[in-house]
Amino acid sequence: MRPCVPALDAVLNEPTPILDKGFIRVIDYMGDSSAVVQAARVSYGKGTKTPSDDRGLIRYLMRHRHTSCFEMCEIKFHVKLPIFVARQWIRHRTANVNEISARYSIIDQEFHIPTEVRRQSSTNKQGSEGRLPVYQNTSALVEFRDAADRDGVSYEKLLHLGVSREQARMVLPQNIYTEMYWKTDLHNLLNFIALRSAPNAQAEIQEYARVMHDLVRLWVPDVVDAFEDYRLNAVTLSARGRELVEKLICGAEVTEGMSEMSKGEWREFAKEWMGK
Amino acid sequence: MRPCVPALDAVLNEPTPILDKGFIRVIDYMGDSSAVVQAARVSYGKGTKTPSDDRGLIRYLMRHRHTSCFEMCEIKFHVKLPIFVARQWIRHRTANVNEISARYSIIDQEFHIPTEVRRQSSTNKQGSEGRLPVYQNTSALVEFRDAADRDGVSYEKLLHLGVSREQARMVLPQNIYTEMYWKTDLHNLLNFIALRSAPNAQAEIQEYARVMHDLVRLWVPDVVDAFEDYRLNAVTLSARGRELVEKLICGAEVTEGMSEMSKGEWREFAKEWMGK
Amino acid sequence: MRPCVPALDAVLNEPTPILDKGFIRVIDYMGDSSAVVQAARVSYGKGTKTPSDDRGLIRYLMRHRHTSCFEMCEIKFHVKLPIFVARQWIRHRTANVNEISARYSIIDQEFHIPTEVRRQSSTNKQGSEGRLPVYQNTSALVEFRDAADRDGVSYEKLLHLGVSREQARMVLPQNIYTEMYWKTDLHNLLNFIALRSAPNAQAEIQEYARVMHDLVRLWVPDVVDAFEDYRLNAVTLSARGRELVEKLICGAEVTEGMSEMSKGEWREFAKEWMGK
Amino acid sequence: MRPCVPALDAVLNEPTPILDKGFIRVIDYMGDSSAVVQAARVSYGKGTKTPSDDRGLIRYLMRHRHTSCFEMCEIKFHVKLPIFVARQWIRHRTANVNEISARYSIIDQEFHIPTEVRRQSSTNKQGSEGRLPVYQNTSALVEFRDAADRDGVSYEKLLHLGVSREQARMVLPQNIYTEMYWKTDLHNLLNFIALRSAPNAQAEIQEYARVMHDLVRLWVPDVVDAFEDYRLNAVTLSARGRELVEKLICGAEVTEGMSEMSKGEWREFAKEWMGK
Repeated sequence: MRPCVPALDAVLNEPTPILDKGFIRVIDYMGDSSAVVQAARVSYGKGTKTPSDDRGLIRYLMRHRHTSCFEMCEIKFHVKLPIFVARQWIRHRTANVNEISARYSIIDQEFHIPTEVRRQSSTNKQGSEGRLPVYQNTSALVEFRDAADRDGVSYEKLLHLGVSREQARMVLPQNIYTEMYWKTDLHNLLNFIALRSAPNAQAEIQEYARVMHDLVRLWVPDVVDAFEDYRLNAVTLSARGRELVEKLICGAEVTEGMSEMSKGEWREFAKEWMGK
Repeated sequence: MRPCVPALDAVLNEPTPILDKGFIRVIDYMGDSSAVVQAARVSYGKGTKTPSDDRGLIRYLMRHRHTSCFEMCEIKFHVKLPIFVARQWIRHRTANVNEISARYSIIDQEFHIPTEVRRQSSTNKQGSEGRLPVYQNTSALVEFRDAADRDGVSYEKLLHLGVSREQARMVLPQNIYTEMYWKTDLHNLLNFIALRSAPNAQAEIQEYARVMHDLVRLWVPDVVDAFEDYRLNAVTLSARGRELVEKLICGAEVTEGMSEMSKGEWREFAKEWMGK
Repeated sequence: MRPCVPALDAVLNEPTPILDKGFIRVIDYMGDSSAVVQAARVSYGKGTKTPSDDRGLIRYLMRHRHTSCFEMCEIKFHVKLPIFVARQWIRHRTANVNEISARYSIIDQEFHIPTEVRRQSSTNKQGSEGRLPVYQNTSALVEFRDAADRDGVSYEKLLHLGVSREQARMVLPQNIYTEMYWKTDLHNLLNFIALRSAPNAQAEIQEYARVMHDLVRLWVPDVVDAFEDYRLNAVTLSARGRELVEKLICGAEVTEGMSEMSKGEWREFAKEWMGK
Repeated sequence: MRPCVPALDAVLNEPTPILDKGFIRVIDYMGDSSAVVQAARVSYGKGTKTPSDDRGLIRYLMRHRHTSCFEMCEIKFHVKLPIFVARQWIRHRTANVNEISARYSIIDQEFHIPTEVRRQSSTNKQGSEGRLPVYQNTSALVEFRDAADRDGVSYEKLLHLGVSREQARMVLPQNIYTEMYWKTDLHNLLNFIALRSAPNAQAEIQEYARVMHDLVRLWVPDVVDAFEDYRLNAVTLSARGRELVEKLICGAEVTEGMSEMSKGEWREFAKEWMGK
């Protein structure tokens, strides 16, 4: 009786590995693409000429940001992730969370050790750019491993001394893994994916966002198509950017000097629209 | 694979009638009592002595207000209800809503006409108390019916004149029925039920709350037992009330004069604990 | 010591009239443009090259949708508005609300009677288009006035019969005025203004949104400038729309047949970018 | 014109030290006790006999959990706190947050080193109980200091190798300090204080909750009085607990055998009501 999605059922409870020791798995879900359509049809009722087919209606809803219809689907994940990723994740407030408590449990010593180390960006727009040279990369990897080992030993030593778990865990670094159940609706999940798979998100959380993107595609493929066309691969032009694009269409010349844009904004505009 | 609840599946999509023309039906749900337990076990992990059986754990969680575990279940209703009830309902913000839009659709002329009319309370604590005398009751019912009929005629007349639906609906009264999909998590649903089935809630929304209470019992019976024991039928004593109850236990006399309570507070206390 | 904004202080508590009997007034506020900047500077700290001046930083934050910084300002309004507008308003959930209760109080008989009546749109995209012809307009206005008068009489009659206020109010129509305190943060307020001043919003709520827009301009002018440039007057191109605009820039021909867009989408695209 | 509170103004921007290197300071606030009253009066209007004086009304609102009125006040703090405390803090979702980003900034090496180390509780109800013996305490303190020093050296080394900040920060332990702006409304702040100053909260976050409690007392003293009487020092009796207390009042004997309570629940009941 309940709507079910065989493609998602097929991977239910199956962890998809992420990073070195993390994973995501879908625990449960509610609704499918037709639940979005059903919600829209109750809103617009019989009195309106809405697109006749479901796929068209979904595209219409996404294009016009009728976000409430996408809130009618819900999904629950079990995620294993490093704490520094969890700290970014938890900023998405419209969600339900249950995370392992290091007050109650002795935490397993599993640390995220990167396979490649990224260089600090000099332009600072993103946090990192490119890889470290081989020698520095090797040194950094050794340092990550050694630091994790040492912190693990400290944690055990403190527990052995009788220190409470809630205090002993203070020495554990931010690349230690944690686990949580995380439940949210489809609209907020798409927001998460849009924000966290963007190039300026940290690479590690991008990996989680991309796996979720794939899982959501199994669940509600028509919604994901619309999401990609109207949000993920869409581009927003500012009032000024729009004027400049209109000039470009008319064949007029457009230069930084006349753009009235900040350096950063111009750089993005020129790259996007003038192939520079 | 997904947790399912046969007792709730048996009534899925079946409307339970409420008031004269309203209803609630469960459209979909996610999770069951074991989802609450599962969430709790990830939080407390292997390091703690939690109650060994699920029922005991659920009672522990409810007693200690570990509310996040109850957020791991989700349910979606289709509700038909008068607008004045919808306006109280919608104040529960942690929920997802899609309601019929009277901008898009011509609204069906279905009005809530009460079968009994309640008298305005003179003490004013609650909105109403008892019924009207027979004559006044009959007059009021006639008035409700006539007003609804007249407003329906006005609405049709305005539409006929070519007035936009979004303006024509302004004449529709607050007892006209509307419909919505409403989705929330179990924790927030229990809050709704506690608040809206309380004696000081308006009688009409109490009817909806009671039906939901019954439906939730089909879904997660252990949770509902705990909810009734630790919230619905629980009683909260203020710091002062607690001192007075301690005196009563010791056999000391307790009077309004010594209570240091406001009139209203003393009235409630005496009724609750001294059988007055 | 607290940041204060003289331009907004000057209109504090002063109602701005809206519609025939409604108003908005600012009751209190917290923070100003510098609070947005302050929040951004704590996030990005000393380690980054952010725009050196505050105005530039605000534009950067708005452009890149760093929305959390705009949540650091808060504002509280007192609003008098018809119920059908209040019902749209309340859908914005991230806000705090206290509204007059018709259970506790006898409601003043103030109804919104439009000065001009809008015709139902035949294309249905928006609810209404243009005005009614003079004769129908006059008839409709008379009907609105008569309906309000009759409902007011019914309400009084019911109260006179001793009917509880909570039930008697059922006959009051949706154009009766209500009042509420409404408090939200700047980010969510800008969302409200963007959504509710859009051409497809109902004309009545647009009027409220526009007054709030003006009030926010008094409060945080730099934020409003950025909001207008990067959101209100910005335009979003879908993945496909972007390709078509690129073709237009190259001077290639673009037709509906090749657009792979739905009729509605093509109509919007052609109007926006090809002057059709 | 705006309500202001001299007692809170006097400490505005002044950090109150917490733990070894943390602090809280009030940055800004909106409203005072009279804003709570104002909101209540708009809800209940002229039609009701509410307590005539403001203090009485506030107590009435708190007693009956009319929580929306307390949402009409807002406050913003600047908090410096260890990451493990921040992780508990951020679970309160109805709040606005801007935190230092370790992606953008090189983080200062300030670590929370406890002055006393708590022993792991054997009964496990709370995380810890009592202190460690002197020798173990000293060893643990040395370990905390050494671990922090080593992690700090690792962090610097990684940065020196050119590792991106966003990756280098992974080695920083959870007792490193972070800073955030945190803004919430009075209702949610009281929830925070109730939950986080409770004996089963971790001692470190209790210290923050207590300082906030003191600051809120400066701000809205009448609200805090009511909060203490009706929430903080109130006690909730379950349906069964209530029956047992009634028996105690009647002088009947009450034993664990007849209580139908779980061991844990009986333990709490007997301690609370029978002095055991």
